[in-house]
Amino acid sequence: MTSETNPALDFTHDAAAESWVASAQGSVDFPIQNLPMGVIECDRGCLVACAIGEDFLDLAAACDDGLLPSLDEESLRALRAVDLNQWMGLRRSQRRAVRAAIFELLCADGRARDLPDEVRRKIVRPLKSAGLVLPAAVGDYTDFYAGIHHATNVGKLFRPESPLLPNYKHVPVGYHGRSSSLVASGCDVQRPFGQIVTEPGGLPRHLKSRRLDFELELAVWITGGNALGTPIPVQEAGDAIAGYGLLNDWSARDIQTWEYQPLGPFLSKNFMTTVSPWVVSSDALTPFVTHPLVRMPEDPELQPYLHGGDGAPELPDIRFEVHLSTESMRAEGLPPYRISRSSTASLWWTPAQLVAHHTVGGCNLRPGDLFGSGTISGASPGTLGSLLEISDGGRSPLTLPSGETRTFLEAGDELVMTGHCERPGFRRIGFGACTGRVVG
Amino acid sequence: MTSETNPALDFTHDAAAESWVASAQGSVDFPIQNLPMGVIECDRGCLVACAIGEDFLDLAAACDDGLLPSLDEESLRALRAVDLNQWMGLRRSQRRAVRAAIFELLCADGRARDLPDEVRRKIVRPLKSAGLVLPAAVGDYTDFYAGIHHATNVGKLFRPESPLLPNYKHVPVGYHGRSSSLVASGCDVQRPFGQIVTEPGGLPRHLKSRRLDFELELAVWITGGNALGTPIPVQEAGDAIAGYGLLNDWSARDIQTWEYQPLGPFLSKNFMTTVSPWVVSSDALTPFVTHPLVRMPEDPELQPYLHGGDGAPELPDIRFEVHLSTESMRAEGLPPYRISRSSTASLWWTPAQLVAHHTVGGCNLRPGDLFGSGTISGASPGTLGSLLEISDGGRSPLTLPSGETRTFLEAGDELVMTGHCERPGFRRIGFGACTGRVVG
Repeated sequence: MTSETNPALDFTHDAAAESWVASAQGSVDFPIQNLPMGVIECDRGCLVACAIGEDFLDLAAACDDGLLPSLDEESLRALRAVDLNQWMGLRRSQRRAVRAAIFELLCADGRARDLPDEVRRKIVRPLKSAGLVLPAAVGDYTDFYAGIHHATNVGKLFRPESPLLPNYKHVPVGYHGRSSSLVASGCDVQRPFGQIVTEPGGLPRHLKSRRLDFELELAVWITGGNALGTPIPVQEAGDAIAGYGLLNDWSARDIQTWEYQPLGPFLSKNFMTTVSPWVVSSDALTPFVTHPLVRMPEDPELQPYLHGGDGAPELPDIRFEVHLSTESMRAEGLPPYRISRSSTASLWWTPAQLVAHHTVGGCNLRPGDLFGSGTISGASPGTLGSLLEISDGGRSPLTLPSGETRTFLEAGDELVMTGHCERPGFRRIGFGACTGRVVG
Repeated sequence: MTSETNPALDFTHDAAAESWVASAQGSVDFPIQNLPMGVIECDRGCLVACAIGEDFLDLAAACDDGLLPSLDEESLRALRAVDLNQWMGLRRSQRRAVRAAIFELLCADGRARDLPDEVRRKIVRPLKSAGLVLPAAVGDYTDFYAGIHHATNVGKLFRPESPLLPNYKHVPVGYHGRSSSLVASGCDVQRPFGQIVTEPGGLPRHLKSRRLDFELELAVWITGGNALGTPIPVQEAGDAIAGYGLLNDWSARDIQTWEYQPLGPFLSKNFMTTVSPWVVSSDALTPFVTHPLVRMPEDPELQPYLHGGDGAPELPDIRFEVHLSTESMRAEGLPPYRISRSSTASLWWTPAQLVAHHTVGGCNLRPGDLFGSGTISGASPGTLGSLLEISDGGRSPLTLPSGETRTFLEAGDELVMTGHCERPGFRRIGFGACTGRVVG
């Protein structure tokens, strides 16, 4: 794997550009500067698509009609596939060429200017008519613990004096998650049964979880491609990232407490993990790259393999919100209530550092692998990424506009996570939503 | 998923039966009563095969020649595939029919009695000419901790007074492993680099592991097929198991010690996991089913979802051996030295209980998923399944016939795991070998 230098801004970031797709004009999530990739399920099966406003570009149809003539055969095959794994497996320069070709096709003064209306209607169709599925067949899903305020808050519940474990600032802690139970935004989540100890020192009982929680995380989609035994240097790790999304790492806290010693979380997490369906590419986020968390002089020195130096890709600055609505709130016509607002500025490790660490012992990554960042919480109230933190371990219920209270999630509750990037002089880039409703 | 009753012994278990394949007569691992399934890589690509003596049956060729006429279309498609996932996805009755049809074809007085020699030579070829690869594309790999003596021995290193954690006898502890770095027997293993603390309380350094270990485990190949949200009852869990193999969960103990809190092992395990290439089917093991470990009156009562009752599949009685040879030993012509001998009798949880537990919260299993049992150690010296135990945490080196000593593995060391079942009145069934040599 060779590094392909991070590009300067190019024409796809031009804030003045507009699409001929009417719904894209003024779109807060999916203007033509975004062009996130996803997979639509329709009567023709699964097909690769790109979101544009409230519509999607059917990339298989665009290929069939020869509307992406600048692309090589390998890229065209990837766009005709049933998932994004092949697209993720392209070289970064190829993915950039795909992005440029789609921009040209959708741009108001671009290639499609003279296309007949029936062709336009064939290749661009309303999102509301389409079902979005998981964008890739995930070979391996890894969940990290890079949100330092979350690690501190959770640590405080167990060790008020020294919340962070000694390894935290040295090693990007992570563990392997379950691929089979990854689902796309919109799937209902069942509270899982499991072994639960209801009083200290008591015997476990087989019960439905009473402490179902969400965890707000950044999803990182991996291009991979390193051979087993070959680490990816942190300077090249940006090329191993195809793009980003939102991830809800549903967690059954009562099952977790009992099962997790000594090998980590298992059934408390693997009943379902929800991912937003659109992959916002690294290239769309170029204007929003920022500096990671500042290390203090008393913080440990970084191992060289985690120290990017000048060429290291930095952190995309993504802002998140989490809204909750209950059945009663919806019945009363109350809008979803914002329970958290945070950003990637709370990540102790950058995505590139996670890639470098994951592979430093030789572990191979494959196109379509998925990383979760770990729960993202800020340092203050209103910025917490889980109910465990918001309710202080279940001790301080959250009061909702309906007068209801919540320590953990209850049947009928719906969680909506959103994310976006913004910066003066650039169009806002959104991630769409990552939603799930608790049933049963 | 409905349970298909565990069969009585049938003609495929008849100890008097012999194959017309000469190398199968007297074979200690692969007599006609075994018929393990695997995947061969040859100049025609990957193809499904069945081991018979020192040869293999090319199942694609057998299908092409119409030599398995009793099988339905779905089963024939599975045998023409490039991996065993489709075979694992068949119903148990279909897998049994495949086994019966192969037996008929290879039996001395069966269907192939009158086949011309050139056809026999086409469908049955020497194993030594073939490369064996991982038998399935593993969607998810889960590693358990079901060897109770291992859990006790490792616990003693940290907590001499109460080695087993309070949850151990209640809940089948497990964690998700890495699928991408699973390899078939025979691959060399590199000692991984990672963060290692070399003195108590010291800072981590980026070093090559000095405490590379093996772990002897039973591999359990899963048929899966439960929908997300739908547990598999323990009484039906036997049908969710396609068969068994051997697994070496290579472990870097020094990396593990530093990284594993609080979320479990990660880079200390994911650099490589080696699996034996042959899947010995549950149906081949019917004669060797035995009773699991006896619970004592003081042991906790089993949760109903783990309590099989009368219909529950029990434990296959599999005996294991682990041999070690060093470069010097091989140079001196010394044979590999046996460092461990144990059996499935040390498993606190049966494979069916692992299936029931894995799915009780709704997690879905897929055909081709893989479970590791956890390290299998007996209760006495000579029966320990890892060097961590054999060397008592590195304090008591093992002396080899060459006069060399080992606490952990060194460059040039080769590990060979074998397994077999035996019982008077039945032919011995072997698992082949699970080998790996340490390089660098």
